Amino acid sequence: MGVVLSFEEYPAERASISPLVEITASGMQRVNRLVVERTRSDVTLIPEVARYLIDSGGKRMRPMVTIASAQACGYCGSEADVKLAAAVEFMHTATLFHDDVVDESNTRRGKRTARLVWGNQESVLVGDFLLGQAFKMMVEVESLEALAVLSAAAAAIAEGEVMQLTTAKNTETTEDEYLDVIRAKTAVLFSAAAEVGAVIAGSDRSVRAAFRSYGANLGIAFQLIDDALDYGGETPTLGKDVGDDFREGKVTLPVVLAYRRGSDDDRAFWRRTLVEGAIGEDDLGHAVSLLERTRALKDTVERARHYAAMAHDALAPLPDERAKAALLQAVAFCIARAH
Amino acid sequence: MGVVLSFEEYPAERASISPLVEITASGMQRVNRLVVERTRSDVTLIPEVARYLIDSGGKRMRPMVTIASAQACGYCGSEADVKLAAAVEFMHTATLFHDDVVDESNTRRGKRTARLVWGNQESVLVGDFLLGQAFKMMVEVESLEALAVLSAAAAAIAEGEVMQLTTAKNTETTEDEYLDVIRAKTAVLFSAAAEVGAVIAGSDRSVRAAFRSYGANLGIAFQLIDDALDYGGETPTLGKDVGDDFREGKVTLPVVLAYRRGSDDDRAFWRRTLVEGAIGEDDLGHAVSLLERTRALKDTVERARHYAAMAHDALAPLPDERAKAALLQAVAFCIARAH
Repeated sequence: MGVVLSFEEYPAERASISPLVEITASGMQRVNRLVVERTRSDVTLIPEVARYLIDSGGKRMRPMVTIASAQACGYCGSEADVKLAAAVEFMHTATLFHDDVVDESNTRRGKRTARLVWGNQESVLVGDFLLGQAFKMMVEVESLEALAVLSAAAAAIAEGEVMQLTTAKNTETTEDEYLDVIRAKTAVLFSAAAEVGAVIAGSDRSVRAAFRSYGANLGIAFQLIDDALDYGGETPTLGKDVGDDFREGKVTLPVVLAYRRGSDDDRAFWRRTLVEGAIGEDDLGHAVSLLERTRALKDTVERARHYAAMAHDALAPLPDERAKAALLQAVAFCIARAH
Repeated sequence: MGVVLSFEEYPAERASISPLVEITASGMQRVNRLVVERTRSDVTLIPEVARYLIDSGGKRMRPMVTIASAQACGYCGSEADVKLAAAVEFMHTATLFHDDVVDESNTRRGKRTARLVWGNQESVLVGDFLLGQAFKMMVEVESLEALAVLSAAAAAIAEGEVMQLTTAKNTETTEDEYLDVIRAKTAVLFSAAAEVGAVIAGSDRSVRAAFRSYGANLGIAFQLIDDALDYGGETPTLGKDVGDDFREGKVTLPVVLAYRRGSDDDRAFWRRTLVEGAIGEDDLGHAVSLLERTRALKDTVERARHYAAMAHDALAPLPDERAKAALLQAVAFCIARAH
């Protein structure tokens, strides 16, 4: 099924997550069953806490990427993809538990965080439990290559969290430093999620590299769009889900750009609100107006487009048209969220 | 001297190298004198070979960046900037000598390469001599911090050259892998050139980080534009300086994109010409037409614009308007070369 691409509009995919959801539907059903199975424990607190977050409506992008990547590479087994996808989702969930404790966050996906409901210690330890279960599932797959990819990712994520401790609340952060943080925090796991799909399909070095790049660049684009959406997206509006990053004093790319491009008064405002945490009623509105005046939100989306284009080109030469199109339309969807 | 920036056209600098040339003119005179002095040797072959390349009309962007960065940071000494700038230029020249031997290149800047005129051994050893002289000048500056930055750069450049040996002539190279190569080959030295200017001016951590980012991103943009220009730029024309990379079988970003986006026939063409080196009379013309059809040259310039924007934002908060404007206009100039 050839597709005629007009290079004048390259990349030309429609922006939609539906094809990815469709082609991974049966795999994801089994992933979800496995997630339930592997959070069982005689210590009843564990499934209770774990499922509280797992069932709270995450998009499950990462395991879908693993399932679709394996499919795109012609994987024809029936278990390894599902186990690795569940492991990836557990790794992701574990970092959310730990992040909420470290950041002292009170809400996540519109609900009170587990640390508020059960406590910090419980959140840290259930996160550790999920990491342990993730490693058990990876080992069951019996692919040393897949283990190497995912264990390297786990180490890099932890390294990135420590790095973020030392750079957090620093409004002088450069864009490059911020990129290093989100490479470790987000891109590394997306990258591993995509690469292990190719690994278990027995793909060669260049195909693995293509999926590694696809995942890493999708991850960066995804995170930058999330950053922009936290202030209402490219055309900011003060909706009800806006401002979490601001209230938590997070220095994300929109802030990095607005801070660097702003006046001395602007910079004093960002330091007062984000570093000192002295946030008044009108400050979120003022923050959004500064982000708009300095074009920081538009350019955050522009930067995300660059990484989306890289993700797109990474997958370009692969033959499986259906899975590839689904993965590429997911990239376009990720960007389109910000409009 | 305030500048009113319309953020609708941000970044709004004029594209010109002249301001950078002007503000570094007196410093560069002394750099050029030092270059002559430090290539003297009782072994008469050394100045002869060294000056053959040094005097062959390079743009001396890197030492200009060091001089201007020191100035932008308020450096008020009179020697360290000049010595470090000369050291940076020597490091750059040394890698050119070694590259030409490794790549078996026959022309450089429109002249026969030194290795053809004097021989490979001579080229390697004169390169080593220049590296030695570079380190001597760095040590004379007596800044351990500047030494740390430049010696780390020297190690990273060498590491990148070895990496390139293993990835060269691989048309399956991903954009990320190619970026790793040019980060090491070009961006690292630009980054160090900019950072040491801030170091000797005694700037704090965040200013150093700003210059480090500026240099690295300028270096990437610079290299990508060079890659595009080797095929005639954004609107390709087959001028007389076009096609060196093609004839040497270099896999640069335009080729990476055209290969990935192309048909099976296209990919066979790139493998035959670049990997096997079977290049016929009409092949350069065909290569350019493939680069145009796949939008590879346009998008290489587009990618370069992304890094130029990052370089721009890196320097945004610095106070010295004159030196800063010169450094930013040089970024815009670098991109404008491709039109």
